[in-house]
Formats: sequence, C-alpha cells, structure tokens
Amino acid sequence: MEVLYGLHPVEEALRSGSSRIDRISIARERSDRKLEQLASLARAANVRVSLEPRDQLTRISKTDMHQGVVAFVRDRQFLTIEDLLAPAPRSSEPADSHRRFFLALDSVEDPHNLGALLRTADGAGVDGVLLPERRSAPITAVVAKTSAGASEHVRIARVTNLVRALEQMKKANVWIVGLDERGTPDYTNFDFASTDCCLVLGREGAGLHDLVKKTCDHLLRIPMAGQVSSLNVSVAGAVVMYEALRQRTGPNQIPAVQQRPSPAHKRPKERRGLGS
Amino acid sequence: MEVLYGLHPVEEALRSGSSRIDRISIARERSDRKLEQLASLARAANVRVSLEPRDQLTRISKTDMHQGVVAFVRDRQFLTIEDLLAPAPRSSEPADSHRRFFLALDSVEDPHNLGALLRTADGAGVDGVLLPERRSAPITAVVAKTSAGASEHVRIARVTNLVRALEQMKKANVWIVGLDERGTPDYTNFDFASTDCCLVLGREGAGLHDLVKKTCDHLLRIPMAGQVSSLNVSVAGAVVMYEALRQRTGPNQIPAVQQRPSPAHKRPKERRGLGS
Repeated sequence: MEVLYGLHPVEEALRSGSSRIDRISIARERSDRKLEQLASLARAANVRVSLEPRDQLTRISKTDMHQGVVAFVRDRQFLTIEDLLAPAPRSSEPADSHRRFFLALDSVEDPHNLGALLRTADGAGVDGVLLPERRSAPITAVVAKTSAGASEHVRIARVTNLVRALEQMKKANVWIVGLDERGTPDYTNFDFASTDCCLVLGREGAGLHDLVKKTCDHLLRIPMAGQVSSLNVSVAGAVVMYEALRQRTGPNQIPAVQQRPSPAHKRPKERRGLGS
Repeated sequence: MEVLYGLHPVEEALRSGSSRIDRISIARERSDRKLEQLASLARAANVRVSLEPRDQLTRISKTDMHQGVVAFVRDRQFLTIEDLLAPAPRSSEPADSHRRFFLALDSVEDPHNLGALLRTADGAGVDGVLLPERRSAPITAVVAKTSAGASEHVRIARVTNLVRALEQMKKANVWIVGLDERGTPDYTNFDFASTDCCLVLGREGAGLHDLVKKTCDHLLRIPMAGQVSSLNVSVAGAVVMYEALRQRTGPNQIPAVQQRPSPAHKRPKERRGLGS
C-alpha cells in the first residue's frame, strides 16, 4: 500500500478511474469547498472517505504538504515489455497509422525529474515508459505529486535489464534513439513522424551508460546556444517528446502575417524597431 | 555578498569570467582532483582561495550539499529594461538579421523552476530575461545550482512593474506572447523566426495574472494529448524556447532514409513490425 497526498494528485488519481485507490482521509480541522468536492468525487467512485486529525495525515504522508488529504493506494502493477509492445488501446486511429513513441529512463534517480518526465510523457501522448527496476527512482508520493497525477495514467513497464528490453524493442521494429551531448544529428533532424521509436534518457549529469549507448541506433543532440553544456534531464526529454509530437501532428502552418489582435495597442508602423 | 556552492555552479561561475567572485573556500578535509582543478581555475582568474573546515562551509552555505566548495559572490547587478532592449553584444551575426527572443517570468516563485528556466534560456540562446522585483524567486544559491551556473551568464533585468516593462517592449517592436492553457493558436503555429518576441510564463498552477494576460499580443497553447491539463512551468517554457530556436535555425532537414548505423544489429526486413 502506498500513500498519495495533495489536492491535485488525489483528484487526478480519483478522476483517472484507478481502481487502486483503497480509501482517502481528509483533515478533520479543514472544511473547505475543494476538500468537500474531493470527498464527493471519492464517494461517487465508491472510495471510502474518513476524517482524521491533521497531525495524523502528517504522520501518514511524512510531510506537512498534504493539503489536508491523503489517499491510500494499492501497490502499482507494472506492465511487462510485452504488454508495452502490444498494440495500444487507442480506438481513435487505425492501428496501422499510429507510430508509437516510447520513453526509456536509464537511471533517472531524482523523483522530481521522474515526476516531471511522466507528466510530460502524458502531455505529449507517449505510448509507454520503460523503467529499469534498479537505478531508477521508485514511484513514490513525491513522484505522483510532481507528475500532477500522470504517474497514474501513463503506461509503465518495469524491466530488470534495460539493454535487453531495448533489444526486444528493436526486434519489434522500434528505433532506439538516445540523447547525448556529443550525439549527431540535431534532434530536429530525426524523422519521428514515420518511425516507431523509443527515446532513451540518461543519468542527470553523467548521461547514458556505455552499454545502453551502444544499444542505441542513433544518438541525438540538443543544440546548446549558450555557455552551459546540457539541459536538465526532464527539460531535455520534454524538448524531444514535443518535437516528436509536432512532427507527428503535421507540418506547422505559419500564418503569413501575425496580426496584433487588439487595435488598442499602439506600435510604430515599421516592424523593425529600436534594437534590430 | 551572496554564497554559491557546489562543484558545477562554482566552476561555471569561474569559467564565465564573472568579476563578481570575491573568493572561494575549499574543504580542508577533502583533497581530490576536482577540487584541486577548481582551485587552479580560481587562481588563474585571480580569485583568492582559502581552505576551511568542512563544517564551516556547511555553516556558510546553510546546507551540507556544498561538495566541499563555496564561492563568495558580490551582489548581482541587474540590467534595466532599457539595457535589455539595447542591441545585444553579439558579434557573430549582423545586428539587423538577429531576431531577439526574451523571456518574462510572471511570478515563478519556485527556485528550482527559476533555475531550470535560466539554464534552458542559456541553452536556447535567449537574449534576456525579465523578472519582476516582487512575486519572483530571488536568485539564490539554489537557483544558481539548479541553473548549472546559467544564472551567471544570462542577461537579467529586474523590473518593478512587469506590465509596464512589457508595454515598453511593445513600443520597441517586440511581440508579447503569453503561454496559456486556453490560448490559441498552438505554439508551433506562431512565427518565431521573423519577429522579435517575448515569451511570458505565468505562475505554477494559476497561470498568468489577468493584467499580464491582457498585455499579451497572443496567447499560445501547448497541446496536451493525455489526461493532465498542463506541463510544469519550466518544461512548458523549454518546449517553446526550443521551438523558437528550431524555427530560427532553419527548417529541419529530415533525411530521406534513416540508416541504422551499426550493421551488427539484426532487425526484420519489414519496417512495419509487430505492433504497427
């Protein structure tokens, strides 16, 4: 049994229709609209609601950041790599036209980074995430909260051996693309639109392990225009996941002229102003 | 005087050639190659180096995460909005062809988000960042560390009134584009390549303040393909900053065929595998 806390994560978990929520506890001392709504939402989902002293919630969640609510959640059942590779349950498009996009995390050990990556994976419509059993942050309450509840929605497979799982993906015609400071080409030059692929992200700071790197079909680079040599791993992952989504949802149609919507704002007639 | 700590931030600060570093202190107990390199780097930059007990460094930095080094840094002098709008000192391209890209943060109060945004701003070649004096995290050691030292490199203006500063930018022919969950169009449909613009990011959770929102020429949206309604603010900012960089560095040239670089990997002849 694990504990989830905070208004947003608990609400997301309830709305996800997850059958893993055993019960929720709400601070007896607080009576506000948001907590009441949450209690109604829980009851509608046949989840038991109890009132507890605030201190008790702090003890249970091991933090005072619980915002007056904790949820008790049955342990997460992870998918296998085979589950992940099976056709995704997407009814909206024919299976044949859907190009799958997976995310594999090679030793992302910071729970905030893991949470942010799962949140972005949900936002960018990633088909599934691969986490190695060791060398990865566990999906704790911190991860759930940072992910704004996305850790509940995203399909996650836990694998004992990441390299072996990636090899298995290759056999299923998935291209393995790693992100690497010395990679080539630029990530925007990779064709995400017409291939199934799996983006592999490495450790904060040290990057991909050698064996994982060798398993990659391509190593892509994010250009760094300034003086710092790399981005935060959750930021780097987001940049590539959204580039893939952009390519997959068609070429961007840049409007011929960008109109200033409100005529009330005054600006010089010339488009080229002071500093240009 | 402020205090910077940790190997990477101190090294970045030294390498930036910042004249703000007064002196650095290194833990007496530690003697490893990285700290020695840092001391040499400091001496080469005419920065005084002292050895101190490790406990003393912990007291000074108020954390035990200092990795054996702290730097004493003279208070940062911020730019004014006029400085920011003055032509940037970029010798590599003619001033006339450079389209400026600014970032304005409307109440980003989490130091980790601020640090990550400054790091990405450096990476994406942003010309300057606008921070309101109030309602913004101060540039602390945590921000400097999270930014991997980028808080030292990026041009930052502190303004008393964000709306007034944005109006001033408009007069200088800079387009003000806010990020908003209900915005339209999609950010990939905005033409970042041929306009000077300033991206405005709002509060974590609550988004842009009403007045700031009204000041925006356009409100852009990041598509959310899953169940969560928004991205983390530092992730959202990164996705747009890198889209702007992508558009500005020319159309992406997708290779006609992606070749698997190493012939050693075996894969089925058919491109369409199991799940597609």
